[in-house]
Amino acid sequence: MPLSSQNQDSPMISELRQDIVTGDWVVIAKARAQKPESFKKEEEASSKFSTSECVFCHPEETGQKKDTLIYYRDDGEWSLRVFPNKFPAFERQSNTVRHWTEGPYFGMEGVGYHEVIVTRSHQRTYGEMTVEEVAELVDAFRTRYLDLMKRKSVKYIMIIHNHGKNAGASQPHPHCQLFAIPVISPGIELELKGTENYYKSNKECAFCTMVNWELKEKKRVVFENDSFIVITPFASRSAFELWIIPKKHSPYFERITQREEWDFGEAIQKAMKKLFLGLNDPAINFYLHTSPCDGRDYDHYHWHLEILPRTSIWAGFEMATGVEVSTILPEEAARFLKKQN
Amino acid sequence: MPLSSQNQDSPMISELRQDIVTGDWVVIAKARAQKPESFKKEEEASSKFSTSECVFCHPEETGQKKDTLIYYRDDGEWSLRVFPNKFPAFERQSNTVRHWTEGPYFGMEGVGYHEVIVTRSHQRTYGEMTVEEVAELVDAFRTRYLDLMKRKSVKYIMIIHNHGKNAGASQPHPHCQLFAIPVISPGIELELKGTENYYKSNKECAFCTMVNWELKEKKRVVFENDSFIVITPFASRSAFELWIIPKKHSPYFERITQREEWDFGEAIQKAMKKLFLGLNDPAINFYLHTSPCDGRDYDHYHWHLEILPRTSIWAGFEMATGVEVSTILPEEAARFLKKQN
Repeated sequence: MPLSSQNQDSPMISELRQDIVTGDWVVIAKARAQKPESFKKEEEASSKFSTSECVFCHPEETGQKKDTLIYYRDDGEWSLRVFPNKFPAFERQSNTVRHWTEGPYFGMEGVGYHEVIVTRSHQRTYGEMTVEEVAELVDAFRTRYLDLMKRKSVKYIMIIHNHGKNAGASQPHPHCQLFAIPVISPGIELELKGTENYYKSNKECAFCTMVNWELKEKKRVVFENDSFIVITPFASRSAFELWIIPKKHSPYFERITQREEWDFGEAIQKAMKKLFLGLNDPAINFYLHTSPCDGRDYDHYHWHLEILPRTSIWAGFEMATGVEVSTILPEEAARFLKKQN
Repeated sequence: MPLSSQNQDSPMISELRQDIVTGDWVVIAKARAQKPESFKKEEEASSKFSTSECVFCHPEETGQKKDTLIYYRDDGEWSLRVFPNKFPAFERQSNTVRHWTEGPYFGMEGVGYHEVIVTRSHQRTYGEMTVEEVAELVDAFRTRYLDLMKRKSVKYIMIIHNHGKNAGASQPHPHCQLFAIPVISPGIELELKGTENYYKSNKECAFCTMVNWELKEKKRVVFENDSFIVITPFASRSAFELWIIPKKHSPYFERITQREEWDFGEAIQKAMKKLFLGLNDPAINFYLHTSPCDGRDYDHYHWHLEILPRTSIWAGFEMATGVEVSTILPEEAARFLKKQN
């Protein structure tokens, strides 16, 4: 059967799809196919204990460290705060990073910054907030990024969000974490190499290619505005995975304009709302993928946000490959999420 | 401070360690340090429902497919069975793999094999079995491997074990799964490239270097016999991670001798027993890392087994990097596990 002749309607029991950026393959097992509704989280006793016990509702009273950034509402109350993590994975702040060896091995001191970004509302997830609130969160990302990227020891800044126990969140109060670290994270290295190779072979950015194709095809586009599209990627690693990608080529998140901040805030809010409604407030991780801040050029890269709902526990296959055996087609997931408003 | 002058006793709050094979960095957060005992799994209601309800205790009565391999005990009862997975991720068996494209994307039919390897005992985990029983399991790995590697569409054979709900096991009865697939798994690709680069730079296998260093240093060796060592790797990705590595350079698992099968069985049994005793029957994934069977030479590679206890839920940082922020030093984990017998 000639290349290209297959489509979704073919009787393939399972299919492999290649990630255009990294070259990795993902698996979609149709023999195990599930309806979108079957991924809904079951009702559980609320883990949102009262605001009076919450360490993030009253940071000044619960031993949090001094704010590094704070936003206020019109009524003078705070709306967003950023402060160092009380139990940091990276702490010592220094311009120099001590290296060490042990026989054939290399080690490095964990110099860096680990901050928490807390929005005011204890109850409302990002999908339930206003666009204005989420756009302010994006502004905090950019502001902290611009400050930390200047530090000499910082080579990469990771911004992540964990929501729900099954996504590893230790606090129910919505928050993000920022890690400014002296090495480039392995997942990003793969994407940097992948986009570089793609550019060399195709004289085009892999993400721009993706954006153009998805805007033409529409079947995996869940939401779009002037600056961003939200898609279920062709090679989704997990059910209902969503990527938010700037429409125009942009290697560096921190160069986002004010207008784009609003549009990015809207895209996050819509994506999170659709997952919240469609999957009944599932556990979620998201992380910003952007160029390193190590002084080199990464003009071939294209920043974006990856959102991973945690609808199943990763087993050996997933731990070994980083790929879920997904039981729903990305196109079907997109159809389902598009309807959630 | 000069390179090499740091050691474990230095006051580093957290440290980064580089994986000698892939070059990836892992994090050990000492500020969050925990005692080994604190990783112990809490008691929970037994999920080992009775053997009369178990789909693997009586495969012939519970709609399992026909055995592809069966071992018998001296009394004529079966001791180990291999049969196709009832809900396969890969199923259609064919010598040709259909490819397809959609615009800039590539896809491939999920041709392959997905088998279940079931040992007889419902109650006893691999750590509680005899060496003889685990060595028989290893023999089943090899036998199925040798059969499946001959199939034209099979490029890689993954053998994995999921134990416990938090490791994604759907059945409490001890079992392994085998996936024979038409692509090389992404995690293995990284190791193949890493060992190739290491060999080019150092004229030595990265795993042989590791084995020699660990045998000399001893501080991360948890168990050894004539053919294998069990270590907590220098750059452990998660707390209490264990690797079982052949002492002599061996790229291809399937060339294991009968004597080595026994020794490998003993190493698996000991490693699993130590985790069982030390961490109170934790959820565990293990997977065999071996060379692809795509007809090429991988003489620079060195097969091994990676055992990952699932003592915490992976959050955004882990999902983004594939690395746990580990709160115990591999050397301390080794000291603790060495004592468990």
